[in-house]
Amino acid sequence: MTPVIHTTDYRVEPGATVDLTSVSTLPAFADLGKHKLRKALRERVRRFSTWQELLYAEDRRAVLLVFQGMDASGKDSAIKRVTSGVNPQGFRVTNFNRPSSQEIEFSWLHRHWLTLPERGRIGIFNRSHYEEVVTLRVHPEYLRARKLPPRPVDEAFWDERLADIVAFEDHLVRNGTSVLKFFLNVSPEEQKRRLTDRLRNPKKHWKFDPSDLEARQHWDGYRRAYEAAFQATSTATAPWHVIPADSKPAARVIIATIIVEALAAMDPAFPDADDALVKDIQTLRRSLGP
Amino acid sequence: MTPVIHTTDYRVEPGATVDLTSVSTLPAFADLGKHKLRKALRERVRRFSTWQELLYAEDRRAVLLVFQGMDASGKDSAIKRVTSGVNPQGFRVTNFNRPSSQEIEFSWLHRHWLTLPERGRIGIFNRSHYEEVVTLRVHPEYLRARKLPPRPVDEAFWDERLADIVAFEDHLVRNGTSVLKFFLNVSPEEQKRRLTDRLRNPKKHWKFDPSDLEARQHWDGYRRAYEAAFQATSTATAPWHVIPADSKPAARVIIATIIVEALAAMDPAFPDADDALVKDIQTLRRSLGP
Repeated sequence: MTPVIHTTDYRVEPGATVDLTSVSTLPAFADLGKHKLRKALRERVRRFSTWQELLYAEDRRAVLLVFQGMDASGKDSAIKRVTSGVNPQGFRVTNFNRPSSQEIEFSWLHRHWLTLPERGRIGIFNRSHYEEVVTLRVHPEYLRARKLPPRPVDEAFWDERLADIVAFEDHLVRNGTSVLKFFLNVSPEEQKRRLTDRLRNPKKHWKFDPSDLEARQHWDGYRRAYEAAFQATSTATAPWHVIPADSKPAARVIIATIIVEALAAMDPAFPDADDALVKDIQTLRRSLGP
Repeated sequence: MTPVIHTTDYRVEPGATVDLTSVSTLPAFADLGKHKLRKALRERVRRFSTWQELLYAEDRRAVLLVFQGMDASGKDSAIKRVTSGVNPQGFRVTNFNRPSSQEIEFSWLHRHWLTLPERGRIGIFNRSHYEEVVTLRVHPEYLRARKLPPRPVDEAFWDERLADIVAFEDHLVRNGTSVLKFFLNVSPEEQKRRLTDRLRNPKKHWKFDPSDLEARQHWDGYRRAYEAAFQATSTATAPWHVIPADSKPAARVIIATIIVEALAAMDPAFPDADDALVKDIQTLRRSLGP
């Protein structure tokens, strides 16, 4: 009844090459239908909520969830649905759009450091430092506004940025922040359908950005930049997951399953109360009378 | 008359091993006497001030100055004297003492990222991220308070931290922040003299910290930790300088010379006014009348 999901099916193994043109954007179990998929999601969100409470109480480790994907791949709604019902106090969601004039006063990793989750919390990057090796790789002309020292923008330039990301995430993992990365893999056809829907439906106009159509014209460029990023930065400790995203309900169930499995593997636990606290509690209990 | 200083004499070349027991803590030119050394410092501070103004106006690059050294090696006074007379608006000085309970909620590099200089500014770290591979290496028991994931604190642990630092600084340099690192190398004898002075002089009592004496007992441990850090992290673009620090006036002249040379090599320049601005200025000039 409930879908059987092998999360490793979606994980990019370290060093593996990914050819996005040959990866399915619709999982077989999407046939179960909306009703069953929503039920499956609710069940996972409940477990997510339980684990998140333990992570918060333990207060030693953090989790960083990175969401990337083409426009209209369903990032915003996936974040909303996967976290709804989980204590918002434990979350920190950051949207990374074009950097502000203040943000470019620092190196490109700076604004990502500023919004990392503290111990006990779950940080969500809606778009992330990966824009710096994807969107900027497709549009190197955007680099001109960044006040960088002059130098050729060649393969070595992007390799250094990818190495910066690996060093950044590796540091986080070693110091207690688990990193999970999701690429919402939508087909060009399904994306077209969703963008057309935005243009037709006045309630969705606010979501429409003319740059969405521009990005469609560079589909292959984005695809290649993502493939290079997956190969360079999917590590054993900070893996990428390529999520088939043509069915939003199915995508959300896969994402929630991966998060719940990762939290279960971390196995956070309520901290032991120290002896002094136990004594205090006993005294207080007695003071309440029999 | 003015001392001739070859700054390369003090620079740690990439990969070089340093044996601090064989490095002089007093340069020959210290014989010039306080008066001439102060005059030499004033001359360098004037040039520093001119370069700093250009760096600020250019607004593309930043400088990070890192000061490390044993207690009473003269870090505070060197920072004060080398920067006095330079526009304080262009500086950001941060003292890194034991991390606060809020700071340990994040990874150890986090608080250093938070206080980096923006473009056009000079950041000064009075103590720095190097405490994490020096003081903590001598006192690994301090790690217990850091809420880190359990793992052996072995050579690999420190090598990873050193690699983290190289990746951090390399990223900064590539994105426009020059990094200069100073180790104020005081002899145990001179340090003893200064600490004794602090205990004898009521006006200096506030500077005294009982942990100063504790650190003296671990002199060799600190020395070895510093030597390992120099070898691993002195790179062509973010070099370490070992400054003979038994004469404070001589040490300050060397530090100021190194900073001025580095700024001259960066050669910051006033940005060109764009055509629209030039036109505006011409109009405004005319409006002021002949």
